Amino acid sequence: MAQRPTGVKKTDESARAIRFRQKHLLAIADLDRFEAENLLDRAEKFAPLLDERVKKLDTLRGRTLINLFFENSTRTQSSFELAGKRMGADVVNMSVKSSSVAKGETLIDTAATLNAMRPDLLVVRHGSSGAAELLSRKVDCAVINAGDGKHEHPTQALLDAFTIRSRLGGVEGLIIAICGDVLHSRVARSNVALLTLLGAQVRLIGPPTLMPAGAEKWGAKVFHDMRAGLKDADVVMMLRVQRERMTGGFFPSAREYFWFYGLDEEKLRHAKPGALVMHPGPMNRGVEIDSTVADNASVSLIETQVRMGVAVRMAVLEALAESGANEERS
Amino acid sequence: MAQRPTGVKKTDESARAIRFRQKHLLAIADLDRFEAENLLDRAEKFAPLLDERVKKLDTLRGRTLINLFFENSTRTQSSFELAGKRMGADVVNMSVKSSSVAKGETLIDTAATLNAMRPDLLVVRHGSSGAAELLSRKVDCAVINAGDGKHEHPTQALLDAFTIRSRLGGVEGLIIAICGDVLHSRVARSNVALLTLLGAQVRLIGPPTLMPAGAEKWGAKVFHDMRAGLKDADVVMMLRVQRERMTGGFFPSAREYFWFYGLDEEKLRHAKPGALVMHPGPMNRGVEIDSTVADNASVSLIETQVRMGVAVRMAVLEALAESGANEERS
Amino acid sequence: MAQRPTGVKKTDESARAIRFRQKHLLAIADLDRFEAENLLDRAEKFAPLLDERVKKLDTLRGRTLINLFFENSTRTQSSFELAGKRMGADVVNMSVKSSSVAKGETLIDTAATLNAMRPDLLVVRHGSSGAAELLSRKVDCAVINAGDGKHEHPTQALLDAFTIRSRLGGVEGLIIAICGDVLHSRVARSNVALLTLLGAQVRLIGPPTLMPAGAEKWGAKVFHDMRAGLKDADVVMMLRVQRERMTGGFFPSAREYFWFYGLDEEKLRHAKPGALVMHPGPMNRGVEIDSTVADNASVSLIETQVRMGVAVRMAVLEALAESGANEERS
Repeated sequence: MAQRPTGVKKTDESARAIRFRQKHLLAIADLDRFEAENLLDRAEKFAPLLDERVKKLDTLRGRTLINLFFENSTRTQSSFELAGKRMGADVVNMSVKSSSVAKGETLIDTAATLNAMRPDLLVVRHGSSGAAELLSRKVDCAVINAGDGKHEHPTQALLDAFTIRSRLGGVEGLIIAICGDVLHSRVARSNVALLTLLGAQVRLIGPPTLMPAGAEKWGAKVFHDMRAGLKDADVVMMLRVQRERMTGGFFPSAREYFWFYGLDEEKLRHAKPGALVMHPGPMNRGVEIDSTVADNASVSLIETQVRMGVAVRMAVLEALAESGANEERS
Repeated sequence: MAQRPTGVKKTDESARAIRFRQKHLLAIADLDRFEAENLLDRAEKFAPLLDERVKKLDTLRGRTLINLFFENSTRTQSSFELAGKRMGADVVNMSVKSSSVAKGETLIDTAATLNAMRPDLLVVRHGSSGAAELLSRKVDCAVINAGDGKHEHPTQALLDAFTIRSRLGGVEGLIIAICGDVLHSRVARSNVALLTLLGAQVRLIGPPTLMPAGAEKWGAKVFHDMRAGLKDADVVMMLRVQRERMTGGFFPSAREYFWFYGLDEEKLRHAKPGALVMHPGPMNRGVEIDSTVADNASVSLIETQVRMGVAVRMAVLEALAESGANEERS
Repeated sequence: MAQRPTGVKKTDESARAIRFRQKHLLAIADLDRFEAENLLDRAEKFAPLLDERVKKLDTLRGRTLINLFFENSTRTQSSFELAGKRMGADVVNMSVKSSSVAKGETLIDTAATLNAMRPDLLVVRHGSSGAAELLSRKVDCAVINAGDGKHEHPTQALLDAFTIRSRLGGVEGLIIAICGDVLHSRVARSNVALLTLLGAQVRLIGPPTLMPAGAEKWGAKVFHDMRAGLKDADVVMMLRVQRERMTGGFFPSAREYFWFYGLDEEKLRHAKPGALVMHPGPMNRGVEIDSTVADNASVSLIETQVRMGVAVRMAVLEALAESGANEERS
């Protein structure tokens, strides 16, 4: 990756004017700090628009965004649909049952078919790690990974970072604790990558059975005791526990999980006073998070995350549509 | 509710120019006569547009309507989708399986999530009475109840009243018989409220097992004998019988139901000569209505109801978007 | 059908300017050669647009297209959705489970309901032969058959002919072999009708159990030996084998089917050198077609078919919207 001037401040207009170099957004791991901040700067431009009466731009008029979801996710799909429509694009939703795409080969045929329909932007969610990257090699358009197996969910990390930056002014130097089922979480992977890239100190908290081997090598500190891990944290980011894990031998019961790793007011007191709480949603109340924390408007950023998600996705669509890498082909 | 001049005629331009005061449309019970007629007057403006070649307005351009359906209803969902698109809005459909929202708490989280996406109009159908009202307390945007449990379905009542008014010039003084499974019917509840508000005499006809206790207090006369109930009726409004009721002990069989409460030509002869027939659809032919009646174009208004449904929903979207109550927040 | 000058060349501007006379597109069998070529000429106008950055036209702005699918088909539905949106129409998707429409009568009620919503164009796919035609008699708008049972799938045939014409300059005089499960294939029926109308020599290849009685009367030659049928063919069009046929006694196993009727490089060598390969998709690789053929870009037109599908559907939407038969009613 080429060296870029990292001293560019986010208020610098020239940073916004610079083209995004990536053709796709597949993983935070593909971005350098300059590119990541470029996306957050673009989001800053769109965030105020969300509260306007008329939210529609013509930036992507006549362009087509295909929302290809192999896993259900009303929340993420709607966020991309809204972002696309607000940018003026035509949005086509395709929900494909995974049963009908059991074989890997079919994914490639699906890619070829979609490519032939000449979309400009393809948002894909798939249960297999690497699916978005595989698709990206078979199509001409820009591909956005909206979650692939246990690998990455880059727009979630971008919206999380943007939410933190909007509230605290920046990410650099913050202590951010990510807590829960790290093992199965693409949200955790993308967030560790982005937050460390932006200069935060990241901690991972969770039971040994839900912590990937070698998590320390991601550049984060690992804790199995939640109170120790929360000490001095500026931000506590809770992960969703998949209900199917509860009977998978990963931990004895939802009740026991909550006892050790559920965020309640008592545990939150171990973090820095005024520490903020985040969750990618949808929440399992009483499992990984207590309602007294989730609904406390002075600490919870959970709704802000959803709102910022639309702005961040608008930013990503704009950046990829403008990207030199995508313009060359047309 | 403040007193309003009720002498305003529907042709009075000033009536149309007046802003709708309600923030939401949750129940007919929330409306006064002036507000109800304001909505019908607006619909009159949109009805001719449906037969135009180009049906698109820019009234809601850049605004977002979310169609949130917890129960399947292709008919109602499409009607709102068309109304929204014809008014120029961006429409996002969200079909949520009730299985994934078993707990009441999740509805509030869904509301918070949607609210954070900053829609302008939220149309909601849900299997539980009161769900739309609950949502409306948690979001900033205008909420339209598209059917909540056994409670209300206000746009259905408005389109029924608008259909009658378009055909017969008005509702005041008419005898309107609503017949069938009143107990489980939100359509009946909304219609009794609206038609009595507009000055009609409403009758409820059905077997005792399908008539709610205290139905007389709604301001309608109750009949268990269909022929007696139909006597002198100007309009006969049939209700859909849910097939699951047929095995629920409410009545012995579909055949027996039809014998006593199914509308056929013989029973219709007990109503006023030229009486009109309505049904909210979809029909169970041979159960609550006979095809000789349903398909008789000189008495059946069933297709007109569907057409008027789009005009009435355009009117409701316009009224709520213009509403002072909604403008204040933006 | 009135006689038309058949000597009009496809480059003749006057041909394009002529109005399409049909009100609906239900079956290739309803078209004369002049009308078929008119549609292909229109598609030629739209094909280059697909590679443009901005693909949106205003031709159908303010018009409504309803995509009514009683059978799942992500591919065909998306193609029509894209075509409609690129022409500027509002597109409403309705996916109806066949379970809820078991009775034929319901189809007519659905038609009446849709008609009352005043769409301009209704695209319908249904599992029963004749469903599109039945619908067309009950609605005022233009109906496009997107596949009805074993009957016809006219836009598939049009996109196939257009793909051949784009690659080989024309269809007249070509030898085109259609191979596989002809018995159950609406694609085969529509293609035989269109390709013979356009002057090609059509052959049908398949096992006797999958060949309809009297197929010779369609104007095609019938072969049960694939190598004999492929001799001198310019184009080989493979049909999809429905997996449910494999256990239905039509043939012993997928492996045996591939042995006799699966297209691989060896069998393809029996066709004319440079013969082109087509498939309507989605493919069953290793059943009716081998990957070495499907993925050979120098002979396979499979992705081109998908791309041309959007252009052909834009052409059909334009032709029907402009049709004198449809203009009269508005």
